[in-house]
Amino acid sequence: MRIVSLAGGIGGARFLRGLRAAAPDAEITVIGNTGDDITLYGLRVCPDLDTVMYTLGGGIDEEQGWGRRDETHVVKEELAAYGVEPQWFGLGDRDFATHIVRTQMLDAGYPLSAVTEALCTRWNPGVRLIPMTDDRTETHIVINDERGRRAVHFQEWWVRMRASVPAERIILVGADEAKPAPGVLQAVEDADAVILPPSNPVVSIGTILQIKGIREALEGKTVVGVSPIVGGAPVRGMADACLSAIGVETTAQAVLELYGAALIDGWLVAEEDAGVSLDGVRVVARPLIMHDAGAAAEIARAALGLAGELGAPVAVSGEEGR
Amino acid sequence: MRIVSLAGGIGGARFLRGLRAAAPDAEITVIGNTGDDITLYGLRVCPDLDTVMYTLGGGIDEEQGWGRRDETHVVKEELAAYGVEPQWFGLGDRDFATHIVRTQMLDAGYPLSAVTEALCTRWNPGVRLIPMTDDRTETHIVINDERGRRAVHFQEWWVRMRASVPAERIILVGADEAKPAPGVLQAVEDADAVILPPSNPVVSIGTILQIKGIREALEGKTVVGVSPIVGGAPVRGMADACLSAIGVETTAQAVLELYGAALIDGWLVAEEDAGVSLDGVRVVARPLIMHDAGAAAEIARAALGLAGELGAPVAVSGEEGR
Repeated sequence: MRIVSLAGGIGGARFLRGLRAAAPDAEITVIGNTGDDITLYGLRVCPDLDTVMYTLGGGIDEEQGWGRRDETHVVKEELAAYGVEPQWFGLGDRDFATHIVRTQMLDAGYPLSAVTEALCTRWNPGVRLIPMTDDRTETHIVINDERGRRAVHFQEWWVRMRASVPAERIILVGADEAKPAPGVLQAVEDADAVILPPSNPVVSIGTILQIKGIREALEGKTVVGVSPIVGGAPVRGMADACLSAIGVETTAQAVLELYGAALIDGWLVAEEDAGVSLDGVRVVARPLIMHDAGAAAEIARAALGLAGELGAPVAVSGEEGR
Repeated sequence: MRIVSLAGGIGGARFLRGLRAAAPDAEITVIGNTGDDITLYGLRVCPDLDTVMYTLGGGIDEEQGWGRRDETHVVKEELAAYGVEPQWFGLGDRDFATHIVRTQMLDAGYPLSAVTEALCTRWNPGVRLIPMTDDRTETHIVINDERGRRAVHFQEWWVRMRASVPAERIILVGADEAKPAPGVLQAVEDADAVILPPSNPVVSIGTILQIKGIREALEGKTVVGVSPIVGGAPVRGMADACLSAIGVETTAQAVLELYGAALIDGWLVAEEDAGVSLDGVRVVARPLIMHDAGAAAEIARAALGLAGELGAPVAVSGEEGR
């Protein structure tokens, strides 16, 4: 059984851990968001790829959801002592090593997909993790604050400003030229089902869907999405700030309409959102809060079960959904 | 009073601390060796510049003589977990930050001299530290071991092999094209005296002297050298392995002859080497072992005193030489 999933950071990574538990024999290919990537101190940082890699590889800081567990912050302190900016992005020492290795490989000419594969040989995430593109794309946010209207890197808006300044526009710089990384379209073509985790529909899943050819390839497959919105609020993170930037309500209904019936075949919503509907989409209500790894696996089982009901040749392992 | 000094790593840095104590009001310019520099994990490492900067700036690991005190090694452990080579060079986390800042500035187009000046604004070493050149030069060692005759980077020979394989030749790659860094020749021209610390005469001082124009500029000044050899053995380090590579005996006499009377006006030797002599050079015997900072200052006072006797307009501060 072959499954393709798209993923952003924390929420996507936790869902994927559940998906791997729900389908332990499946070949799972994860197409990772790289719109959040940023160059800091000359080092290329890929937050979403690393969150997936560390989470599935057992290296994540579980409490925080990102970064390495047992992390120290000596390098960051020293950079601050040199007065180096920015100081608002929290890179730990263990994490620094990942970025040093990645940057050295990129500088040597390896594409990001090859670098990611090399890093994963250490982490053994149990899935094949491919960046959405090897081309450089970056999500920039147009804001209008006391300094005037300007574009800032997504991370500056998200991490430094905690998305407190309204986003006027969200732009994926480089999207026009970016091609899917090698293996992305083939994995989609070969997939028995595609599962969209409850990742951010704008700056994670939405970013991946902007890479030429990926949405079109997905539209030919059985795609089941897990709503990132429960009862009018994001499952986690600040998806509402991103949705309002593109004029979409923070509801399971609105996100489904954003994705559209051409893409989505099955839509998993929380029980309080049972009234959601869209022509051509099968909507199923289930508990969607990922309290722990078991809950994530249960949601993944429900998503796979829904894909099966829709005709995808998928089998669900372990405890049955109710 | 203006003093120029040339310096390698540990021995040079400790001597310079003594020189600063012996001449607290002097403008001291240190021309640092960059032949030991190496690119590791994509980061530019300048061991001698950093040893001088950390030692004079109060950040050195006193016990070890190089690297930062209170150092940790998380990044190095993580790089090893990724299988990254080499693993024989000991970079600590605090030290990594220095190399990250340096590399970022170099990549942005700043010359090494400007980068060094910027790093020193944090460390306030109390001297002006200039790399011998902004051009890339690297000391390579020709060895002939079980893998055959080949050239290795100085650090591989020095650190990994502990200089245990005989050096057949020592080559400063890039020496022919390298120009002195901005400020180097002017500092020499303006100097009231030049003091050569007991640094390695081959791969530290000898390397600096290979940069076009530096030796010639020094020959016009009052130059006092402190012998790095005491009673037939290096004061510290493995200078004997370097001297034998160029066919020079490990004696205070042979090193003086290597430097030559055109360069050296005064030569400070240990008491057991009192018989050393060379036409045109004034030789003075003094205790030369740098047990501690006080001993280093005493040696520096003796060197300045000798420069004064030779006609240089220098004044010695603090406790008089005996």
